[in-house]
Amino acid sequence: MTEEFDAERVAGNGLLDRRIFLRQGGGLIGAVGMAAGLAGYTRPVHAETLVVPDWTKTPGAWLQGYTQPSKFEGKVVRGPLPNNLYNGIGPGNARTPLQFLDGMITPNGLHYERSHNGIPDIDPASHHLLIHGLVKRPLTFTVEALSRYPMTSRISFVECAGNSGGMYAATPAEGTAQSLHGLVSCAEWTGVSLAMLLEEAGVDPAAKWLVAEGADAAAMSRSVPIGKALDDAMVALYQNGERIRPSNGYPMRLLLPGYQGNMNVKWLRRVKLLREPAMTKDETSKYSLLVKDGKVAQFNFPMDAKSVITKPSPGINMTASGLYEISGIAWSGHGKIAKVEITADGGKSWAPAALSEPVLSKAITRFRLPWRWNGAPAILQSRAIDETGYVQPTRDAQIAARGSRAAYHCNLITSWGVAANGEVKHVYA
Amino acid sequence: MTEEFDAERVAGNGLLDRRIFLRQGGGLIGAVGMAAGLAGYTRPVHAETLVVPDWTKTPGAWLQGYTQPSKFEGKVVRGPLPNNLYNGIGPGNARTPLQFLDGMITPNGLHYERSHNGIPDIDPASHHLLIHGLVKRPLTFTVEALSRYPMTSRISFVECAGNSGGMYAATPAEGTAQSLHGLVSCAEWTGVSLAMLLEEAGVDPAAKWLVAEGADAAAMSRSVPIGKALDDAMVALYQNGERIRPSNGYPMRLLLPGYQGNMNVKWLRRVKLLREPAMTKDETSKYSLLVKDGKVAQFNFPMDAKSVITKPSPGINMTASGLYEISGIAWSGHGKIAKVEITADGGKSWAPAALSEPVLSKAITRFRLPWRWNGAPAILQSRAIDETGYVQPTRDAQIAARGSRAAYHCNLITSWGVAANGEVKHVYA
Repeated sequence: MTEEFDAERVAGNGLLDRRIFLRQGGGLIGAVGMAAGLAGYTRPVHAETLVVPDWTKTPGAWLQGYTQPSKFEGKVVRGPLPNNLYNGIGPGNARTPLQFLDGMITPNGLHYERSHNGIPDIDPASHHLLIHGLVKRPLTFTVEALSRYPMTSRISFVECAGNSGGMYAATPAEGTAQSLHGLVSCAEWTGVSLAMLLEEAGVDPAAKWLVAEGADAAAMSRSVPIGKALDDAMVALYQNGERIRPSNGYPMRLLLPGYQGNMNVKWLRRVKLLREPAMTKDETSKYSLLVKDGKVAQFNFPMDAKSVITKPSPGINMTASGLYEISGIAWSGHGKIAKVEITADGGKSWAPAALSEPVLSKAITRFRLPWRWNGAPAILQSRAIDETGYVQPTRDAQIAARGSRAAYHCNLITSWGVAANGEVKHVYA
Repeated sequence: MTEEFDAERVAGNGLLDRRIFLRQGGGLIGAVGMAAGLAGYTRPVHAETLVVPDWTKTPGAWLQGYTQPSKFEGKVVRGPLPNNLYNGIGPGNARTPLQFLDGMITPNGLHYERSHNGIPDIDPASHHLLIHGLVKRPLTFTVEALSRYPMTSRISFVECAGNSGGMYAATPAEGTAQSLHGLVSCAEWTGVSLAMLLEEAGVDPAAKWLVAEGADAAAMSRSVPIGKALDDAMVALYQNGERIRPSNGYPMRLLLPGYQGNMNVKWLRRVKLLREPAMTKDETSKYSLLVKDGKVAQFNFPMDAKSVITKPSPGINMTASGLYEISGIAWSGHGKIAKVEITADGGKSWAPAALSEPVLSKAITRFRLPWRWNGAPAILQSRAIDETGYVQPTRDAQIAARGSRAAYHCNLITSWGVAANGEVKHVYA
């Protein structure tokens, strides 16, 4: 059968054509073995199915003003939370459980978080945004004032500069997609164009930078080139439709699509226009990229293209041999994801994955590819290519270019090793 | 100034060109009066702004596994919840607070809900999906089995067939965007293509319909044409990235993009393929459209194009005269929104609003238009046009076509009356 033959020949070790699951009613699904039970999970009808469950026999629970996830999803939380050294206050980070999620949007309760001195409990009635420095008219805005401004919306990822830093370790760190790569999330952000506010204040042509400062107890502060501020920067008030949560900057944060997370200053308090970068503590003591020979590459802003397979991944193991879907997320701070390729033979051959629509600039893109696992050990990798043509590098290539002390902006290819018993582990390959 | 002149001439009573706020750095914002303070809200810098707030002086709160909205957003809840007649159990509905949201995504905590006998507390380990009837191989699927299947994602609205039913009342119902139109929400849904599952089961060519049944205590059941089932129907497991909440069908629901809400059967338990519609209690005693002369239009499935202005709207009042943004949501069960037009003079003249990207088929689209309010009473309306060319009808036109007892599928144009004091009320115009 020609279709079956083609479907099987996309790349080595069982990778199938990405279009198999997109065709509907065409018989191709059957051709690759779906009718025989996908991944060995489908079962014939048995008596248990036909018993009317208890919850169908009694009226269910009443409405709530604000709903919560099922109590059976208790494992789907951010973490692992680090040890708290300061009696329930202070700096830390919480990672998104990527391996339990699907789609492109991160629900607000699970958006990753990094704070440099804890989450301030801000009363919006007492919060102001100040725009000053090299402007014609310094201005302040209350939250209510900003809320009445014209808004823009965009779906955008935010990624911590330190995400995936553990990938430089000499031996493969044991962990999950969450613990290794969970400092990235994606939401629909809505707010006021920073360019509009700056135009209202009147930008002095001498202003080439601004410094954005948070109202948190770290007074988190970063310098931003004026070009980015006038391009797609936003003072965001809403996240996935509702007001931003305290952990993500309530009542307002700076959104710099594609730029490293900490520059998207949360709890935004002021924006000061400057001739030169402010060289704040947050951009000199850290968030600079250590490169080879003890040098530091100053001001690396956009996050380069990256991808990670979330299914299967450590903790989301395989069971019987058979047909599976490989699924994961890809993103680039430079624009749209153009392609994601997957290998099941440790990099010898690659197959293009299907990309879930909509594929948006500087947003997470979900990719998927069918795989017939033969039950033998395998190495899975994904590599993202963005619309600039940039290709996510191998671990060896990134370390050769930067050394292994770079710590920030790590975007090398992750390898998941699948054992014959179906267990998935982080490996170097 | 030519640009200013053009910008002001889009439509009567102060509607401005939708592109004003899209241009950045071009001076047009200043031309329409932004520099003088938008909506009278911007304030010069004053001392209060420069005081370091208390929350900047003490380390903030620690991380949580699953975050919640700010305590200052307590008013942003679903409702108004109806009186509960059955001691905290049983049927009801909860409406999305549209007037407090922005963007296209509804956060999971605020997705609207309608249940016919309460929310079942389903243990996913004991839930099964049965596919039977006119199929070659009846099949059952556990939640775990389905979770390993190939997935698809799409951003889609769901709207209750009874949404906006109050618009037929003889006098304008007092209410908000939430209480009048809040039985609509939009999320990214991820799950398994129903076509794929049906192909695995093997569809008998005699099957022209299916009946989908929920595991709730209403055993909510609806008939669906086989064509829709094989087109874009999905057994959805995830909502905005995480597992569907109990109120929205945990652990799985049917998603029929664009079709009336109750057909998107929650807590999906079985799908039975049939020669003819099942004529269940839920599609005979209700969810049929009463039309003129006591007749009933059987099986109206897709929700027609509709829009509502959320800012301003009742409770989101105007203050001083000046520049504002009119913002709202539009959607169509037949495809993409092609255009939304706004009038500020009760329908005499219309201006096209800007549509926020991405504009997706059968999803909510956010629209926006700048408006210079002169402080006089005004009537605001929006009308949606979808890609089929269908135009959202006026109230008079819809009542002339259907009579005023239709109850379901109401999609007539809503009128908000703005009083000289800025108060916004639902009116007929």
